[in-house]
Amino acid sequence: MTSRRGFLAAVAAACTLLAGCAVPVRSTDPLPSWNEGAAKQSIVAFVAEVTRDGAAGYVPAAERIAVFDNDGTLWSEQPVYFQMLFALDRIQALAPQHPEWRAQEPFASLLKGDLAGALAGGEPAIAQIVMATHAGMTTEEFAQIVKDWLATSRHPVTKRPYTAMVYQPMLELLAYLRASGFKTFIVSGGGIEFMRPWTEGVYGIPPEQVVGSSIKTKYEVRDGQPVLVRLPELNFIDDKAGKPVGINQHIGRRPILAFGNSDGDFEMLEWTTAGTGPRLGLIVHHDDAAREFAYDRDSHIGRLDRGLDEASPRGWVVVSMKDDWRAVYPPSTGLHATN
Amino acid sequence: MTSRRGFLAAVAAACTLLAGCAVPVRSTDPLPSWNEGAAKQSIVAFVAEVTRDGAAGYVPAAERIAVFDNDGTLWSEQPVYFQMLFALDRIQALAPQHPEWRAQEPFASLLKGDLAGALAGGEPAIAQIVMATHAGMTTEEFAQIVKDWLATSRHPVTKRPYTAMVYQPMLELLAYLRASGFKTFIVSGGGIEFMRPWTEGVYGIPPEQVVGSSIKTKYEVRDGQPVLVRLPELNFIDDKAGKPVGINQHIGRRPILAFGNSDGDFEMLEWTTAGTGPRLGLIVHHDDAAREFAYDRDSHIGRLDRGLDEASPRGWVVVSMKDDWRAVYPPSTGLHATN
Repeated sequence: MTSRRGFLAAVAAACTLLAGCAVPVRSTDPLPSWNEGAAKQSIVAFVAEVTRDGAAGYVPAAERIAVFDNDGTLWSEQPVYFQMLFALDRIQALAPQHPEWRAQEPFASLLKGDLAGALAGGEPAIAQIVMATHAGMTTEEFAQIVKDWLATSRHPVTKRPYTAMVYQPMLELLAYLRASGFKTFIVSGGGIEFMRPWTEGVYGIPPEQVVGSSIKTKYEVRDGQPVLVRLPELNFIDDKAGKPVGINQHIGRRPILAFGNSDGDFEMLEWTTAGTGPRLGLIVHHDDAAREFAYDRDSHIGRLDRGLDEASPRGWVVVSMKDDWRAVYPPSTGLHATN
Repeated sequence: MTSRRGFLAAVAAACTLLAGCAVPVRSTDPLPSWNEGAAKQSIVAFVAEVTRDGAAGYVPAAERIAVFDNDGTLWSEQPVYFQMLFALDRIQALAPQHPEWRAQEPFASLLKGDLAGALAGGEPAIAQIVMATHAGMTTEEFAQIVKDWLATSRHPVTKRPYTAMVYQPMLELLAYLRASGFKTFIVSGGGIEFMRPWTEGVYGIPPEQVVGSSIKTKYEVRDGQPVLVRLPELNFIDDKAGKPVGINQHIGRRPILAFGNSDGDFEMLEWTTAGTGPRLGLIVHHDDAAREFAYDRDSHIGRLDRGLDEASPRGWVVVSMKDDWRAVYPPSTGLHATN
C-alpha cells in the first residue's frame, strides 16, 4: 500500500501534468508558498483555534466567513487597477462606433494616447469612461466582453494574462480556509460584474460570494426574451466605509477573518475584528519591487498609510510580500483558465 | 443488522422525541407531505434530470440555484404580511417614547386601533410606519428586536407563533433540493434584515442566501465600537421586476428553479424559466380556506391573476395547496426554534 506522503506526491505529479488544476494539491503544509514566520503562524493558529471542537475560540462552520479584498490582495493592481485598463481598452475598441468621441473629452485625449490629459477631468472624467464602457449592454453581454478581454489581453509590464497575476499564496490560503469549513467571499471596490465572470474559475469563489461596486440594472423583455440592461447610473460603491455596508447587505453577518491591502480596506478590517470571539485582520504590504511592486504610504493606487500605523495597536497582521511569500504568482504551468 | 427502513424509522422516532430537529428525516419519499400528482411528479422528475450525470439536462451542482419567495410561498401572509403585523406591534411598543404620535397620523389612528384610518394615507403612511419601526437603530439591535417579537407574538387567527406558520411541504422541498446539491435562496419583497435573524433556524437558509428589500445603512464608530445604523431611506425594493435585479445583484447567476405565489413573483419566474437548459417555475395557489386561506385574483395581499392565466402556456406548475399538500403547517411537535 502506498504511503499517504507517496500518494500525495503522485497526485501532485499528476496534477502538474494536467492543465486546469484549480488549486495546489494539499500537502502536509497547506500553505507551501508562505515562508515560516509570524504571519503564517498567525493564520495557522487562528484556523486551528476556530475549528477545534471544544476550543475556547471554536466557531461553528456556518459562521466561518472570510472576506478578501481583490485588487492588491488577491491579484496585482499596478500600474493601475486592471479594470481601468479594461475600460481603456474598451474605449479603443468602441471608438469606431463613436466618431463623436474624437471631439469629446475625456475620450479625445484617450484616443490620442494621452491618459494624463484624459484623467485631468478628475472623477467626472473617470465616471464618463466607466459608464461608456460598462453600461448600455445586457448583463450577459457584459460578462462575455469581460471574458473575451481577459482571454486576449496581457499586462503592460509583466506581459502575463491578468488572471496569471493572482497571488499563489492567496490561492493556497483560500483553499486552506475552505478546506477548514470557511466560506470565502470577495469584498472589493471593483465592479461586481467585472469580477464574477472569472472568480469561480480563478479563485474558486462563486458569483454569489462576490461583493463589489455596481451600477443599476433594469429588467426588460425584448422580443419575448427577458434581459437585465446595465444603466449608466451608480448603484453602490463598495469601498472604505462602504465595505461593512456591502458585507452586511450581501452576507448578513460579520466575518471572522478579513484580508486587505490598502486603506480602502480599513473599515472592513475594523468591522471584522471588532466582533466578539476570535478575529483575524491581515494586510498585504507591497514591499517587493523585485517580484511585484513596492508601494504604500504615497501611492495613488492602493495607498496604505493609516493601516500601517494602526495595524500593531489593533492586532492586525502585516504580511510582507517580500519576506512572508516564497512565491508571488503561480508557476506558469499552473495558470488558470478563465472559463 | 437493522434494515435501512428500520434504521430510518428509529431515527424518525428519536427525532420526534427531540426538540429542534431542523428538517424531517428523509425516508424513501423525500416529500412525504406532498400528495402524489402532477406537481410532485414535476419536481421529482426535474431534480432527477438535473442531477443525473450524463442526462441531457444535467446541471453542475454549482449552477443548481433555487429561489423561493417568502410571504405566501414559504410561510403564510394573511390577513396581512407578518412584517406589517410586526410594525404595528412595534408602534404600540414605542408609543410611550413618542407622545407626539397621539396627534400625528398615521400613528394617531393606529394607537386608537383604527388600522383602516391609518392606512387611508396610502403609501406615504405605510412608509412612515415602516421607517418609524425599522430605522434608527443598529443592525444588531434590529435583529434582536425581530427575534424577541417572533419569540413572544402569536398570529391573530391561528394563535400559532409566526415561525410555526411555515409550510411543511416547503420545508421538505428545501431539504430535498439541498440534499440534491442545490443552493436554496429566499428572494422576497419583505425586508432582508427582518428575515435573516430566523431563516437559518427555520428554513435552513443562511443570511447570505437571503435577498430582500432594504433600507440604507451607515457605518459609524461609536465610543470606539463600529456599528451599522439603519437609516430611514429606501435602498431597494425586491419585488416584481426588482426580483430579477435583486437576483442578479446578490446571486450573480440565473436560477434554474423559482417558486412563488403571487404576481409579485411573475418576473422572477419569467427570468428563471427563460434560461437555457432545464428550468422549473412553480406557483403556490392558495385555494385551501379550511387549512390556510383561500385567495387569488382579487386579493389585496398576494394577488395572483396574471400568473394563473400564463402558467399553463409558460409551462409553470400551479401547486394547489388543497390538493397537492397532505399537510400545510408542521406538526406542533416539530415547531422550530428561531434561535
